[in-house]
Amino acid sequence: MTPHREAPSGKAPLAITMGDACGIGPEIIAMAFRGEAAAGAFVLGDVDVMRRAVRQTGGLQAVAVIERPADALALPPGCIGVLPVVQLPDSLPQGQIDARAGAAAHDCIRRACELALAGQVAALVTAPIHKEALSAAGIAFPGHTEMLQAYANGPEGPPVRMMLANDELKTVLVTIHMSLRQAIERVDFDNVLQTLRIVHRSARLWGQPAPRIAVAGLNPHAGEGGLFGDEELRVIGPAIEAACAEGIAASGPYAPDTVFMRARNTLDHPGEFDVVVAMYHDQGLIPVKYLGVERGVNVTLGLPFIRTSPDHGTAFDLAGSGRADPSSLVSAIEMARRLAAAA
Amino acid sequence: MTPHREAPSGKAPLAITMGDACGIGPEIIAMAFRGEAAAGAFVLGDVDVMRRAVRQTGGLQAVAVIERPADALALPPGCIGVLPVVQLPDSLPQGQIDARAGAAAHDCIRRACELALAGQVAALVTAPIHKEALSAAGIAFPGHTEMLQAYANGPEGPPVRMMLANDELKTVLVTIHMSLRQAIERVDFDNVLQTLRIVHRSARLWGQPAPRIAVAGLNPHAGEGGLFGDEELRVIGPAIEAACAEGIAASGPYAPDTVFMRARNTLDHPGEFDVVVAMYHDQGLIPVKYLGVERGVNVTLGLPFIRTSPDHGTAFDLAGSGRADPSSLVSAIEMARRLAAAA
Repeated sequence: MTPHREAPSGKAPLAITMGDACGIGPEIIAMAFRGEAAAGAFVLGDVDVMRRAVRQTGGLQAVAVIERPADALALPPGCIGVLPVVQLPDSLPQGQIDARAGAAAHDCIRRACELALAGQVAALVTAPIHKEALSAAGIAFPGHTEMLQAYANGPEGPPVRMMLANDELKTVLVTIHMSLRQAIERVDFDNVLQTLRIVHRSARLWGQPAPRIAVAGLNPHAGEGGLFGDEELRVIGPAIEAACAEGIAASGPYAPDTVFMRARNTLDHPGEFDVVVAMYHDQGLIPVKYLGVERGVNVTLGLPFIRTSPDHGTAFDLAGSGRADPSSLVSAIEMARRLAAAA
Repeated sequence: MTPHREAPSGKAPLAITMGDACGIGPEIIAMAFRGEAAAGAFVLGDVDVMRRAVRQTGGLQAVAVIERPADALALPPGCIGVLPVVQLPDSLPQGQIDARAGAAAHDCIRRACELALAGQVAALVTAPIHKEALSAAGIAFPGHTEMLQAYANGPEGPPVRMMLANDELKTVLVTIHMSLRQAIERVDFDNVLQTLRIVHRSARLWGQPAPRIAVAGLNPHAGEGGLFGDEELRVIGPAIEAACAEGIAASGPYAPDTVFMRARNTLDHPGEFDVVVAMYHDQGLIPVKYLGVERGVNVTLGLPFIRTSPDHGTAFDLAGSGRADPSSLVSAIEMARRLAAAA
């Protein structure tokens, strides 16, 4: 089922795709290379764009062209290795939609998938891209998740799921980018069971080979016995039972308004569960983001390699200012490194 | 529009309804009377049930029968004044549904409304009731909110809304106890505008005569310009505009996954908004409960008097054990007192 992937050879480096060159991606990458986080990583992108980003963020790092991923491991600390995938014009504007930036962002991600499948990188971290820039370049994918699904698993390959995680909570979404009405329709037996299987298989990556998976209901009070909707009885409950029959430690459906609080894992509040499966976008993202987006990391589950990304967009209004916050990207790099070490 | 209400005469006491006598209500009330929180308050309920609750929680407080609310103000500290509304049998079991407890809970709430409308109490705090016990007693109301609406505002009177609040976040719900499918249907222009008006009028109670009201969208990314649902364009946006035209400081619709984080008000994170209007039950309750239910208080907005309640149920599994946590009730009492002082 899962596409073939070469095992990373020895100590493979971590790859960071540059993202949309008109957004804050290059700048937050440049800032991430100031600390320890990005040591031994390299950038898939454009050399001149990265040099501009170093200048704009007031950095002093050298930008070095590398020929193959492994070269990144030999660079001195603070030096940003760039594997050139694209060449963008000097005049590329910042802070706006540009088809050239969209096409370049796409090409970097496709190349990253090839390198990851060939075992030449330990993990993949992606800087933000812009949906409309992709579209202006004639690229039909609405976002990273769909692109990774296609290039890594194949268009008809096994499905992937989005996980959002911070220090104290992990949540995996059954449905993502669609209206709430449509999400309700997509909460079906197959999608819920598929999500539970993906979570169960992926959790060894973060050190939990038999994760305690809590499943949120769709309706208030998880339907209150059918009084407030029947999806829990008709769909979610049966999918949990089927997962349990396969040896997956899933339980629920739980009342959505308290299951995230119960799973919250802090020093003085040990979580009752290791991960929560949420039925729709905001159900899972509201609690993960509540304490601050700078701490959240997006992890794609179900790929044949590790992929993480920061939990924010291209922030065109900040592009070129050098004032964007690299915290979420740094968290994404650290998370990718931890997951790759466990893989 | 609003039903006539006598102003509380001088320093009126705070009334606490006993709730379902088979649940933890009487015990958490008894515990609340140990501290300062309940000083000068009294209980609408049954004397023997309250005496049992004092014993079961290992308390030493006296339980005194009072004849009128004002008598409570003359009781010594720690003495629990009970205005007898009902008389329940000694043999009443705990931890299960009982029609007699349902009927008694209802009668206490109806009496509380009468006293509040007559200006004899400063504010009303309600202990948890059980929907099925009410139903077993032939009472058609599904919960407090509907009962208060009927007895205080009249069945055809002005609508009320549920607000959930803790130290750092206030959220008011457009829809409450119904399936998610039904909630989507009920998010209409009138309901959203009505909610904004109620919030605007009520916020002077907590010291904000012109509150900054953030309105959450219904769909992911607040619909992403119509791509993920059109309720924001069709319904929520126009209702916000109409409210602004009336001088209400409403804004949005905002992406639901970040609006609560943005409104979060702590020492090192000043909130961008004073209150968030949420479209459905879990959208608002997930963030309020995320840091712990013991801190949440339920406030009914749109009544002619102050009413608060703890943010949990009857907890039949704990009833009689003396181990229930009174924190949320204590918070509800403190909140009622603060709001009454501002009214």
